[in-house]
Amino acid sequence: MDVSARNQIKGTVKSVNKGSVMAEVEVTLPGGAELVSVITIASAERMQLAVGKEVIVVIKSTDVMLATD
Amino acid sequence: MDVSARNQIKGTVKSVNKGSVMAEVEVTLPGGAELVSVITIASAERMQLAVGKEVIVVIKSTDVMLATD
Amino acid sequence: MDVSARNQIKGTVKSVNKGSVMAEVEVTLPGGAELVSVITIASAERMQLAVGKEVIVVIKSTDVMLATD
Amino acid sequence: MDVSARNQIKGTVKSVNKGSVMAEVEVTLPGGAELVSVITIASAERMQLAVGKEVIVVIKSTDVMLATD
Amino acid sequence: MDVSARNQIKGTVKSVNKGSVMAEVEVTLPGGAELVSVITIASAERMQLAVGKEVIVVIKSTDVMLATD
Amino acid sequence: MDVSARNQIKGTVKSVNKGSVMAEVEVTLPGGAELVSVITIASAERMQLAVGKEVIVVIKSTDVMLATD
Repeated sequence: MDVSARNQIKGTVKSVNKGSVMAEVEVTLPGGAELVSVITIASAERMQLAVGKEVIVVIKSTDVMLATD
Repeated sequence: MDVSARNQIKGTVKSVNKGSVMAEVEVTLPGGAELVSVITIASAERMQLAVGKEVIVVIKSTDVMLATD
Repeated sequence: MDVSARNQIKGTVKSVNKGSVMAEVEVTLPGGAELVSVITIASAERMQLAVGKEVIVVIKSTDVMLATD
Repeated sequence: MDVSARNQIKGTVKSVNKGSVMAEVEVTLPGGAELVSVITIASAERMQLAVGKEVIVVIKSTDVMLATD
Repeated sequence: MDVSARNQIKGTVKSVNKGSVMAEVEVTLPGGAELVSVITIASAERMQLAVGKEVIVVIKSTDVMLATD
Repeated sequence: MDVSARNQIKGTVKSVNKGSVMAEVEVTLPGGAELVSVITIASAERMQLAVGKEVIVVIKSTDVMLATD
């Protein structure tokens, strides 16, 4: 599947923290940076997300803000 | 300012493409990955975004999806 | 690619309206309902979106609101 | 109330799964497709969402992505 | 229509700036604060938004971030 | 830090309701209006959010909808 979201970066799952409806997933990028994703537990389980699994982080460009120091 | 958005990654502006209301800004991350942000032109101008400028990419965790191959 | 977004519905492109940075794409669902998507022109062109093309509408569950009359 | 969100589709609540802060609500559309919404429990209770209730799914167009196979 | 979005604040349109696909609308709140909304031109025209018009600003709680100085 | 999000309004934390992954934070604006934010508990704790704390509500303009009665 080719999805329109412009931002797609490969990474590795560092942790999965399941709550009651949502799960918080930390992903380590190749350069060492980390990203946090909050998705439903249902999605995390369907995708069998677990520590060490390779994933692609997907972010729509209108959801990306920029800041300066 | 300390903002609640969990994802904050430093990068460098690679390009700024201004439309009529929105601007598309490409940012290169240290590891070489690229991210695209769509913000209003008003924000891009207020922040004086230009090629080579150092910025921080800011993304709320509920806006980050994950995918697997 | 299997993406975490819970909502994935097949449809057919009804129209593509390109602006200066963003494109507005209307999609007709099998039941006749229509959805409108706003993505970057760069994505619309990369995916070669055109009238009649079959697409999958993808929406993260935290972006779906509910209303009652 | 007439809200600017371009996507408004009628459906019927199929399930309500309440967590600790957020609730996951499945909605069946007339054509049989299903959509999942994650809203606060406070909203779900204020709107008295329950199985069988008729609702309108509301989605802002900038939150709708497209994909191709 | 009662929509699940938790944040609904009355205000008055201060300006409407139409681009090619999106429109930028400034709204003044009773306390004097201003909010900016970016919606499609199609929505702005359907709702006949114009300077001085009374509107309700609607924001989903998962789209609201917090910051501290 | 100067962030691109166009909407930044000062307010005071009225309540913090922590769930299992997400926290729901009510903020009172100077004019008396209230806004609700849903962020991760990790962010709420990092920022030491508590009743009475002064915060800045930050919202990206593409996440702001408008409605009319």
